[in-house]
Amino acid sequence: MDVKSDNPNIRSIKHMAFAVKDAEQALSAYAKFLHVPAETEITHFPKSGNKVALFYLGGIEYQLCQSTDPDGRFASWIKERGAEGLHHICYEVDDIDKALEHAKSQGAELRICQACGVYGSHAHPEGWVAFLDNDAGGIEIEFMQVYTPEQLAAYEKSGAEAV
Amino acid sequence: MDVKSDNPNIRSIKHMAFAVKDAEQALSAYAKFLHVPAETEITHFPKSGNKVALFYLGGIEYQLCQSTDPDGRFASWIKERGAEGLHHICYEVDDIDKALEHAKSQGAELRICQACGVYGSHAHPEGWVAFLDNDAGGIEIEFMQVYTPEQLAAYEKSGAEAV
Repeated sequence: MDVKSDNPNIRSIKHMAFAVKDAEQALSAYAKFLHVPAETEITHFPKSGNKVALFYLGGIEYQLCQSTDPDGRFASWIKERGAEGLHHICYEVDDIDKALEHAKSQGAELRICQACGVYGSHAHPEGWVAFLDNDAGGIEIEFMQVYTPEQLAAYEKSGAEAV
Repeated sequence: MDVKSDNPNIRSIKHMAFAVKDAEQALSAYAKFLHVPAETEITHFPKSGNKVALFYLGGIEYQLCQSTDPDGRFASWIKERGAEGLHHICYEVDDIDKALEHAKSQGAELRICQACGVYGSHAHPEGWVAFLDNDAGGIEIEFMQVYTPEQLAAYEKSGAEAV
């Protein structure tokens, strides 16, 4: 289907982030039952306190996110529910300012980015991101305007740390 | 990316089913913040005891599923967690028998289809489906081999009830 027809601003699902207790164990289940490569790298992000297994399945980017701190963002989410699950969906948007403006005109509020301590659009390694403080059916919403190659080069030149 | 390269059997995400308390309210959040058409129909499936809002977002089929019975499949899931969320992901496979054979060779077991009371591959309105009794990072796994037009005609001729 033509994605543009159902939403003029949302291009695609950028990624889905799952809160898991143990990234290696969760990856192992995806490898066993869904053929995801078992040798997928698990990356440690010290600034945000996460270990993340990232892979593509059915054309979608999956991130299996484990907090390295027992009070971390994903660990707290699991503790609240007594279960692992889908923490948030990040939607790639054409224009993050317009996406946020639209959402706010519909009553949305902004949620803090727990890795950066910032509300609203701000620079991340792959693009500008923002979180809404409004779930949709229990799923947290993130927007990302992915950098052009030139914007990415400028971001990397700024020496920002991976989050 | 080429989906075939990461999994020879899984074609795509057929749908994502979210357990929600109130399909109208959840749809309203998707409409307000993610531009999903507010006039999306909510369909009642008496056999499985669900009300479902179905739409496409970012090229993926979303199903917002509300149990009409307080002890229903989605209501129980929400009660266990105290929160709404992603209940299962249905993966479209080339060959459901091969997909199940592979999963079982990796230690998977089958979970009952709560709508039909059947374990393993069986006919549903859109194709043959089966559930694994093994989560991946907290997400239930469904496989579906979607009917060809000829298979769909045969299924519909059999007069099976929608689930």
